Amino acid sequence: MPDPKSLDDVTTPALVLDRTRMARNIARLSGRAEALGVTLRPHLKTAKSVEVASCLTGGTPGPITVSTLAEAERFHAAGYDDILYAVGIAPQKLDRAAALRRAGCDIAVILDSAVQARAAADAGVPAMIEIDSDGHRGGLVPDDPALVEIGRILAPGGRLRGVMTHAGESYGAEGRAAHADFAETERRAVVDAAERLRAAGLDCPVVSVGSTPTAHAARDLAGVTELRAGVYMFFDLVMAGIGVCGIDDIALSVLTTVIGHQPAKGWTMVDAGWMAMSRDRGTAAQRVDQGYGVVCDLDGRPLGELIVTGANQEHGIVALRPGGTGPLPDLPVGTRLRILPNHACATAAQHDRYHVIAPGEPGLAVWPRFGGW
Amino acid sequence: MPDPKSLDDVTTPALVLDRTRMARNIARLSGRAEALGVTLRPHLKTAKSVEVASCLTGGTPGPITVSTLAEAERFHAAGYDDILYAVGIAPQKLDRAAALRRAGCDIAVILDSAVQARAAADAGVPAMIEIDSDGHRGGLVPDDPALVEIGRILAPGGRLRGVMTHAGESYGAEGRAAHADFAETERRAVVDAAERLRAAGLDCPVVSVGSTPTAHAARDLAGVTELRAGVYMFFDLVMAGIGVCGIDDIALSVLTTVIGHQPAKGWTMVDAGWMAMSRDRGTAAQRVDQGYGVVCDLDGRPLGELIVTGANQEHGIVALRPGGTGPLPDLPVGTRLRILPNHACATAAQHDRYHVIAPGEPGLAVWPRFGGW
Repeated sequence: MPDPKSLDDVTTPALVLDRTRMARNIARLSGRAEALGVTLRPHLKTAKSVEVASCLTGGTPGPITVSTLAEAERFHAAGYDDILYAVGIAPQKLDRAAALRRAGCDIAVILDSAVQARAAADAGVPAMIEIDSDGHRGGLVPDDPALVEIGRILAPGGRLRGVMTHAGESYGAEGRAAHADFAETERRAVVDAAERLRAAGLDCPVVSVGSTPTAHAARDLAGVTELRAGVYMFFDLVMAGIGVCGIDDIALSVLTTVIGHQPAKGWTMVDAGWMAMSRDRGTAAQRVDQGYGVVCDLDGRPLGELIVTGANQEHGIVALRPGGTGPLPDLPVGTRLRILPNHACATAAQHDRYHVIAPGEPGLAVWPRFGGW
Repeated sequence: MPDPKSLDDVTTPALVLDRTRMARNIARLSGRAEALGVTLRPHLKTAKSVEVASCLTGGTPGPITVSTLAEAERFHAAGYDDILYAVGIAPQKLDRAAALRRAGCDIAVILDSAVQARAAADAGVPAMIEIDSDGHRGGLVPDDPALVEIGRILAPGGRLRGVMTHAGESYGAEGRAAHADFAETERRAVVDAAERLRAAGLDCPVVSVGSTPTAHAARDLAGVTELRAGVYMFFDLVMAGIGVCGIDDIALSVLTTVIGHQPAKGWTMVDAGWMAMSRDRGTAAQRVDQGYGVVCDLDGRPLGELIVTGANQEHGIVALRPGGTGPLPDLPVGTRLRILPNHACATAAQHDRYHVIAPGEPGLAVWPRFGGW
């Protein structure tokens, strides 16, 4: 099929990226990092696109974070040579990391055990020690005796790159004040850990924090050198639900077509099911449950109280939210709609390309995105 | 990277297919269809693989069901020319269906409104009328006056292919007796609808039912001509939870590697998060909530009470199920595990290939799978 010229030509379901909104979101966090005096190391696990990466780093490759070695390899091929692979390293994966280093990529891994540190040291791959600041998943608490033990294993040859943490629990807290508290918890944990390593005579050049909520709320990052965040360029309903952004900052949506109705139930059926939206129900635990997404018109304006209340593989059910009122808009078979996602990372992962628009400007670009490991 | 020779060489996370179990599952439903005297039209929305399709249809292309036009195009290119596209048709998609027909593929669509029927008739594409047997999503109830109206729009030129239904609500019922009742509800709804069309002087050659639970439980399919089912070749924890299969019939799993521990919490961290497992939590509403999946050893044997209790994008948390007891097995960093999925359709969709094994036989095959629309 020929490349589409506008959203009218795009086969549904399809992923749409509003690059005007994305540019605003990128500028917002870049400005904060500058004001806080830290290096921004964007996490590309959500974007998985060379074109989006280029927008994030101002057109010139800069430091990035990735969640898979496939991302590291793709972005290195596109000119990125300062990469943090931010998932606890499996020893079996060090060969691929070492191969990237031999090819000129300064990739570092993360770890939280002596066994991983010995494997990384043997492979000649530098590492950051993961610090647990909020009980979210991996990492050592700053006063764990293993911290200095690991630091000593890595130190020879300068393979101790630093310490890092991620306050994943901040996604469950609402409001700027709560996120600022999590940011301070992140900061204190890594600064403590860095001081312990330095007190043991070890170098700890990089002190890294970050999550999208804390990155937007941190009051002060004294002692921190870099900031990581992933979903901030797109945002989503989960981020809007905890007050990090507004609904009209969300840059990703799924284009869909009306394929039927069940008038007695108030249902409009669309061709975006969970295959297009993902099974993510991240707003289910929030104050406002957005179902599988907020339904908008083709210009991206929410249609009253309509959400996707149910999803099968290739079917979505559009209806008023529970308790919602107001007349149902007339949405005949064939009507095009756009749906804002709960979780941009999960929804984008269901698609192999972005359909990129800038409202008010003609035309449409198609940017590929990749997946896999 | 060279092709892996065994699971030991496969980068994690990765999708594993046990073809011995798959062959048993395929034989089971083929035998039932034969005994019930109906044509089996496998749904390939779960498999999305030419190699798996070939196993389903005994090596020679046969009738199939698909959920996207991308599947129709791929399977037609592989020799399949009798295809039902079983998602309510968007009029904008009829061009692609018509192009497939011109290329020699007998593709039919499904619909439940006069506006869709007129569009299909105009495009020269035959259609099945979707019947609502259980209130699950789309379709007309058999006594809806629109049924005959739609039949009359399609009839000229023989474009009324028949009637079809899918008892999606059967997934929420447990046990063979309940599924047999749903099968009878499916049967009665389409047979009723076919009789109404025939009483109006219209041909209705195909009378089609199916869902994996009802297909395995139907006692009698009098008046039905064909049976559809999708997940039966793989099965999953949702199907095991409602008694359609056993845990040891599940042919799909996700290979993963241990990447860390939080001993105080009883957590083992693995590199299979929701990107590898999907966000599907289909067992959450069942009697036994399996989290994000049941944890097995490398040979596919469940490890006591271990499940994936939490998932981030590339991290899974393995722990005892709530209330579970028993010693935690020793799972050092680097240990390989396999995780049985809640929902095979959703988990498979996160991967671009199957790593195919037959326990007891050496070697490993890699079969590609595709996605998109």
